[in-house]
Amino acid sequence: MSRPSALSGFPELLPGPRLVENRVVETLTRTFELHGYTPLETRAVEPLDQLLRKGETSKEIYVLRRLQGDETSDAGLGLHFDLTVPFARYVLEHAGKLEFPFRRYQIQKAWRGERPQEGRYREFTQADVDIVAKDGLPFHFDVEVARVMSEALAALPLPAMTLRVNNRKLIEGFYRGIGAPDPAAVITTIDKLDKVPATDVADMLAADAGLSDEQVRQCLALAAIWSPDTSFVDRVRELGVHHDLLDVGLDELAAVVEGCAAVVSDRFSVTASLSLARGLDYYTGTVFELFMDGFEHLKSVGGGGRYDALATDGSTSYPGVGISFGISRTLVPLITHGVLSADRSVPSAVLVALADDESRPESDAVAQRLRARGIPTEVAVTPQKYGKQIRYAERRGIPFVWFPPADGGEHEVKDIRSGNQVPADPDAWQPPEEDLRPRILVSTADTEGGRSTGDAEEEEEQL
Amino acid sequence: MSRPSALSGFPELLPGPRLVENRVVETLTRTFELHGYTPLETRAVEPLDQLLRKGETSKEIYVLRRLQGDETSDAGLGLHFDLTVPFARYVLEHAGKLEFPFRRYQIQKAWRGERPQEGRYREFTQADVDIVAKDGLPFHFDVEVARVMSEALAALPLPAMTLRVNNRKLIEGFYRGIGAPDPAAVITTIDKLDKVPATDVADMLAADAGLSDEQVRQCLALAAIWSPDTSFVDRVRELGVHHDLLDVGLDELAAVVEGCAAVVSDRFSVTASLSLARGLDYYTGTVFELFMDGFEHLKSVGGGGRYDALATDGSTSYPGVGISFGISRTLVPLITHGVLSADRSVPSAVLVALADDESRPESDAVAQRLRARGIPTEVAVTPQKYGKQIRYAERRGIPFVWFPPADGGEHEVKDIRSGNQVPADPDAWQPPEEDLRPRILVSTADTEGGRSTGDAEEEEEQL
Repeated sequence: MSRPSALSGFPELLPGPRLVENRVVETLTRTFELHGYTPLETRAVEPLDQLLRKGETSKEIYVLRRLQGDETSDAGLGLHFDLTVPFARYVLEHAGKLEFPFRRYQIQKAWRGERPQEGRYREFTQADVDIVAKDGLPFHFDVEVARVMSEALAALPLPAMTLRVNNRKLIEGFYRGIGAPDPAAVITTIDKLDKVPATDVADMLAADAGLSDEQVRQCLALAAIWSPDTSFVDRVRELGVHHDLLDVGLDELAAVVEGCAAVVSDRFSVTASLSLARGLDYYTGTVFELFMDGFEHLKSVGGGGRYDALATDGSTSYPGVGISFGISRTLVPLITHGVLSADRSVPSAVLVALADDESRPESDAVAQRLRARGIPTEVAVTPQKYGKQIRYAERRGIPFVWFPPADGGEHEVKDIRSGNQVPADPDAWQPPEEDLRPRILVSTADTEGGRSTGDAEEEEEQL
Repeated sequence: MSRPSALSGFPELLPGPRLVENRVVETLTRTFELHGYTPLETRAVEPLDQLLRKGETSKEIYVLRRLQGDETSDAGLGLHFDLTVPFARYVLEHAGKLEFPFRRYQIQKAWRGERPQEGRYREFTQADVDIVAKDGLPFHFDVEVARVMSEALAALPLPAMTLRVNNRKLIEGFYRGIGAPDPAAVITTIDKLDKVPATDVADMLAADAGLSDEQVRQCLALAAIWSPDTSFVDRVRELGVHHDLLDVGLDELAAVVEGCAAVVSDRFSVTASLSLARGLDYYTGTVFELFMDGFEHLKSVGGGGRYDALATDGSTSYPGVGISFGISRTLVPLITHGVLSADRSVPSAVLVALADDESRPESDAVAQRLRARGIPTEVAVTPQKYGKQIRYAERRGIPFVWFPPADGGEHEVKDIRSGNQVPADPDAWQPPEEDLRPRILVSTADTEGGRSTGDAEEEEEQL
């Protein structure tokens, strides 16, 4: 067969970058589990009627049929386009067997048939954390989810990220407080502020949401408020608007910002951002959006919030709060632009050299002794000259080459980066901790999102 | 929405069983990486012409289309039905950027539209290890792959398994040695021995493969040979057949059996099984099939072998050797029959109790101190009576409840299984190693494939 070509929108990683992705998944997993979140995996397919509950996404769905099946076989199955719809369905289906509140994380692929562009793929991996309860979910879980995801993201080897937070109660209460006739219309319009100039948004607020000039001014003043701490509360108060729902929202948003304070660093910040609304109508309180510094052109790389009816079976409702992090959306551009890489393309920390074909059992035995102590090790393929075996290790980024003893001598190990070669005991030698596994390298040279390198769309597929 | 029901053929795990699956994946991953196998993930879809290279599987393929796309959009994409076809395509597509020999493992879902039954699902997860080279792949990699997968499987908390091994060169050489006119027809027929009585196979060997009575007798005599060691070599020799290819095959099969000897235990055995042929025609040397003791009705739960042209682009060919392990095929029946379970449904080892709503920050701080030392911890949801908080932990299987000090007293921790409660320092206390993570419980009473439901003698497995 001839050489196959890449499929646009279905990015695949080469071994080195895949080791980077693996490390990201592992780091997220570790944090989520430390907080008691249980790993969940749902099937890739859902009945079409589940997927179509929100009509707006219908055109992006991949529908399945069996190649040789009749038209009706497996009719009505599609690939999930996010992890929220499947989770809601899972909760309803298995509610009798779950303990609530139920904390889960889910790191899985999803599929959307949208036009591929940088950061937007037809197949992509995302990581979701959610807590869902039966009937009532205390507010402190909003703080918890924000803190858990913040902690997980802050531990990643990525460019700095910012979690923007707002609260639907706050903005709805504010809009009610100024007497807006249709607060939902205001929310929808304010949500356009990141795409449309403020003057146009002002016109829309008047035309579509029926606001007076003064009401428009107030709404835009609220949206202009942001702060990395709880100082936003005073600034909102200064606008002189009063409403009970506004008070609740201010308290909640302040609690989320305070709850994340311990995680904030120069690599991760949390910002109260009062223009944030998130269009989807099911959010009822806290809302989140995640951005990567220098990669704002990717738009948000994650988001979420509180939904008081994630799922409902008529008699019982299941409120939830969660955040989703776009792993592919984040990593594929970073890898493409050379920001993220691994220092080797294999897990192996050691290559055991091979003197001749007859000594393969000895080299294998050394490798097993190293593996028994948790050191990833491979054995040379053929008894080439040692210089060639060293170059084999170099090409893969394997840092150490081990030489079993010749003629009763000692074992020796060479750090091929420094050239240092020292005697070593296969039952005691340990590589430096940071060489045990591939290192993730973060370059800061290209954090302007690759604008300097021109055509990003062309680069997306070759990783 | 009303309560959704399960989709036949798309099994989903509850949280406890999912923790079991997670542990299995993690254990496999660890072994594979210790041997230098790099984690690969391919996209879920392949062009239909790739998937249809073997016509026999065509009816099982799920084809995609976009719900709102025109008929030609994304035409010709289907979900992969195994991990070998995508791997072969990946190797060809990225050959210029890979280092050969290339070792990879791949743990991913695959989809087949076949009739669901126990152990056979429409969506399933499998774990593949393969080594692929350019032009030539030394035989010792057959031994390596067998040993790596054996080591990985032997480390799993599963019922005993048997890896059956044979060699295509051995049997083809034997058939040539007895003068069979069509060795391929003999292989295809002998492969039916596990489904059809030997007398019927004998008739087919005469009718379809053109063998004489004596040749049929010889073929059946060869197929009857099996041994857990290299004693099969002498027994084949005793049949008095000679052929160069037979000699090569005997040497290779003996090397694989010997190479795995170190891994063999009462939980994992390797058997030279000379009836094994594997129908697929691309195997050219070593062939593997994996069976789980007491679950023979599932047929093989894994398999693989050497293929001298896994992929070829016309000018270069890429020989490979690999084994696939069916994770869903193995785990879903074991979980369904109660053989495998986890002792808790959450990662948490500790629940920090909550005295009252005001002390949530103190309880949160204790939890963070425990997490900082790698102990998965959650905090009680509401300040119920301590008895209720303990029952909350019990229902989830969380072994320890932590009580922050009341009125200047000491921190205390209770093992809720024994009832023991002792003073403890949140910066020093450590749970027993085996309580840090969920324990995987293996019941031995139900290894007859769920036919007996007697009292389970449970042995605890800690990986």
